[in-house]
Amino acid sequence: MALNVSADVADHLAGRAALIANDRGMRRENASAKARSTKEVEADRILREIRTKEAETIWREDHPDIKHPLPGMEFLTGKSIILKTRVFEILSKMPKGALLHAHLDAMVNTRFLLELSLKYPFIHVRVLEPLTADNLETNLPVFRALPASEFTEHSSLTDASYPVGAWVPLANARRGFAPELGGEEGFDKWFIDALTINPTQAYDTHNTVEKIWLKFVSTFATSTGLIRVEPIWRAYIKEFFLSSIADGISYIEVRINFLFKFMFGADGQENIPHRDWVRIFGEVVQDVKEEMKKQGREHVFLGAKIIYSTIKSLTPEGLDWYTEDCIALKKEFPDLIIGFDLVGPENTLKPIIYYLEPLLHFRERQKEEGVDIPFIFHAGETLGDGTEADLNLYDAILLGTKRIGHGYSLIKHPKLVDICRERGIAVEVCPISNEILRLTSSMLMHPLPALLNNGVPVALCSDDPAVFGNMGLTFDFFQVFVASEVNGLSTLGALARDSIEFSMLSPEEKNKLLTVFEKQWEEFVDYVLTYTE
Amino acid sequence: MALNVSADVADHLAGRAALIANDRGMRRENASAKARSTKEVEADRILREIRTKEAETIWREDHPDIKHPLPGMEFLTGKSIILKTRVFEILSKMPKGALLHAHLDAMVNTRFLLELSLKYPFIHVRVLEPLTADNLETNLPVFRALPASEFTEHSSLTDASYPVGAWVPLANARRGFAPELGGEEGFDKWFIDALTINPTQAYDTHNTVEKIWLKFVSTFATSTGLIRVEPIWRAYIKEFFLSSIADGISYIEVRINFLFKFMFGADGQENIPHRDWVRIFGEVVQDVKEEMKKQGREHVFLGAKIIYSTIKSLTPEGLDWYTEDCIALKKEFPDLIIGFDLVGPENTLKPIIYYLEPLLHFRERQKEEGVDIPFIFHAGETLGDGTEADLNLYDAILLGTKRIGHGYSLIKHPKLVDICRERGIAVEVCPISNEILRLTSSMLMHPLPALLNNGVPVALCSDDPAVFGNMGLTFDFFQVFVASEVNGLSTLGALARDSIEFSMLSPEEKNKLLTVFEKQWEEFVDYVLTYTE
Repeated sequence: MALNVSADVADHLAGRAALIANDRGMRRENASAKARSTKEVEADRILREIRTKEAETIWREDHPDIKHPLPGMEFLTGKSIILKTRVFEILSKMPKGALLHAHLDAMVNTRFLLELSLKYPFIHVRVLEPLTADNLETNLPVFRALPASEFTEHSSLTDASYPVGAWVPLANARRGFAPELGGEEGFDKWFIDALTINPTQAYDTHNTVEKIWLKFVSTFATSTGLIRVEPIWRAYIKEFFLSSIADGISYIEVRINFLFKFMFGADGQENIPHRDWVRIFGEVVQDVKEEMKKQGREHVFLGAKIIYSTIKSLTPEGLDWYTEDCIALKKEFPDLIIGFDLVGPENTLKPIIYYLEPLLHFRERQKEEGVDIPFIFHAGETLGDGTEADLNLYDAILLGTKRIGHGYSLIKHPKLVDICRERGIAVEVCPISNEILRLTSSMLMHPLPALLNNGVPVALCSDDPAVFGNMGLTFDFFQVFVASEVNGLSTLGALARDSIEFSMLSPEEKNKLLTVFEKQWEEFVDYVLTYTE
Repeated sequence: MALNVSADVADHLAGRAALIANDRGMRRENASAKARSTKEVEADRILREIRTKEAETIWREDHPDIKHPLPGMEFLTGKSIILKTRVFEILSKMPKGALLHAHLDAMVNTRFLLELSLKYPFIHVRVLEPLTADNLETNLPVFRALPASEFTEHSSLTDASYPVGAWVPLANARRGFAPELGGEEGFDKWFIDALTINPTQAYDTHNTVEKIWLKFVSTFATSTGLIRVEPIWRAYIKEFFLSSIADGISYIEVRINFLFKFMFGADGQENIPHRDWVRIFGEVVQDVKEEMKKQGREHVFLGAKIIYSTIKSLTPEGLDWYTEDCIALKKEFPDLIIGFDLVGPENTLKPIIYYLEPLLHFRERQKEEGVDIPFIFHAGETLGDGTEADLNLYDAILLGTKRIGHGYSLIKHPKLVDICRERGIAVEVCPISNEILRLTSSMLMHPLPALLNNGVPVALCSDDPAVFGNMGLTFDFFQVFVASEVNGLSTLGALARDSIEFSMLSPEEKNKLLTVFEKQWEEFVDYVLTYTE
């Protein structure tokens, strides 16, 4: 080899290292002034080594019933493998910071909701066509709290004697579920199937964004009859907080859908207004904080706040009632109401621009009332290019959104990417939700790596884990970690820190939470360093 | 509505229009100084209207055997619908400019190759295990030209008397294909299946990048026994050019794989060296040009040139023979050899960096020999993030690649995106290839819209249409057009113009081709304006 070639090799290698560093220079873990500790460098090496080894072992093995095992694969199919990995075991111990994109109606394990609901004799269920073995998947239960005067004696939904449409006490419906439909187990399966998406639906029968959304929306229509009942509401929220804490989540900003104006009480009357929803939410926050304090671990939970949400199927005039309601709640619960959003299937409901006038009016009204309720909009949760859902990104940003919910199509918009980086508009990225809702076929096709390299702040979020089965945040961190050779321990740390930095907390609260986080992070790094199978 | 809200609405709408224009300002069709003609604006409107209407009609209809019809859907499943659309009919008349990314071994309709091969009695076929109804898909034919002395009398591959491994004249094999395996039609199906990817393979049995590449590579291993036979080589290339011209392609830069050092002659001897491959290629170019001239349409074909390619399974030392071979061919055929590339499955073969020394040496040797053979590298044809295949993008660019083949993962790299835009490194984007080879599940998930908005020059390419069934370029333009509301007629025009601008033609040749193109484009716009069903 001639001398000039050797010199050229050295030049190339130096230029290569510089170009790679430059290309990754905007990444949040690299942009930080703080150097990684020696310990973190070593823990990163260990974790990468385990990832590489598992890619070659457990993901290469034959798994009966799993056609194409692969790190980052379809979550619903791959979950059973994920649960066997050491990477998952380790990440489950990782402090996650804040959960910033989550819909209250889908935050608690479905079996927990079932068991909780069975405790209350006022919870009834009905079906609107006869239940048969053939229609179990589509014949969805309807739930309701009834006043005592309307309690029934019906003993089963599946008896020949059941008058279709009649309310049956939930416990009776379960006990009396026909043996040929599986008995109590069959009932539980029917219940859980109605509230979750299964792999056949996501990857076969409903394998488009439009079709899977039909199933997705139906889970909310079904669960709302249980969750919007005062005693369940309270217990459900508590379980949501406790299970989040168990997964290393220290703080939550949850979207509550205020479309229905009342929830049911234990007396079966639908008369509990929004202010009580929020009051109870606040009481549960205090309750859980006190419980943690009693356990001597006050630091694990800084609390939870609410992003007021309603649905993009309203008329512009119809929205005014909700913005006024939101202002009233903000005035009564200034520490709990911290943002406003419009939700629902973006590809089929109205775009943000449709609500331009009421939203601007809302802003004016906030000034008049002396409150500040930032927009935290869903936008760009779509495969569309230049469609209304995609264009929502422009409107969300022009309206001053503090964060972007999903922002799946953001990467198509170079100027918006720059704006998000420069103005600190974080994207609430929901990897598993995006995949199950068919925006991407696996984590490997997700635009997250492009956003990260562009220095866009990102908080990983679970969106609707009760429907998807990705309870907590560990599954989402797992999918992101295993689908990239660039992502390392410091990437995960940066994602967790950004979830705190881009929360709606006050600077003082953020500092408090970050201080706790850094201590937890050090402990986690030590845990990785001493990890043995 | 208060007065300030109305003013705010106007402000918002003005800011919105400006932001959208700014965000799309780098797009190649917008970056051009030349304004669109009034005619083109109207033709664009017509074409968009047809697209919208077809999205709501033909794509919404029930199609037996097509589970999820959708514009931009999986090509192999949706092709039958595509062929029924008016958008396809119109785009088939569009001038396409140049075809810049295509592998010669997969450029001709498989049935044509079958019929062509049947003409030559020296073409024989064998199988290496007994053919049965159960193994037709995996028991691949092996083809070879034999010297007359080795011609056989075998009459069938499927007879009980067939000695497995023995050569059978191709025509005999077809005529004698067992009736229970479908007879001649069964043979044709077996032949075509061996050289193409079917929807079940792409979307079910081989539905990962790694698995579909196994099938993909097998099609080349099979077809090479036919294509690398001198008379077939000549006729195959001619058909490639003629069918390209029929689809509106005016100029071609094709990758030829020179891995095998000789091809077979009509005498069954494997002794025809690379210089004859290139000579014949040049003769066919002249032949077709003269044929066009005779037909009075000389302007439809400016010619075709060769990107010398070999495979990334070589050792670095082994590469030296090929780079010297390439230099020798360049000296003998300076107008035909216009670039150098390394091909093969990027995720599993060696990365570019592995060949750094021989590639730098190659560059030195070119200087010594007074030739210039630019690199036109495949890079980033991968779902990997930070994997060797993804890192190929850095090395390709640092080595001065003139274009990037595929660049599927380019969008993850903000600095490389900037470099491509600023230095004019075009990306050869192969939409249908990417989808069938499982980098994306549909055009809707493809990163092309992000590249376009980032102002990266793009040439749409067909890659391996004989294997994918996307003959010509119309199918690829179709998929790109229907999967986006941003893409319009002018986008398609910009893509076609960039295929000329970023070709390896001399400035004079480019001007010549562009002049022809502009005239064709005007005619096409007129055609759209007068289009009736």
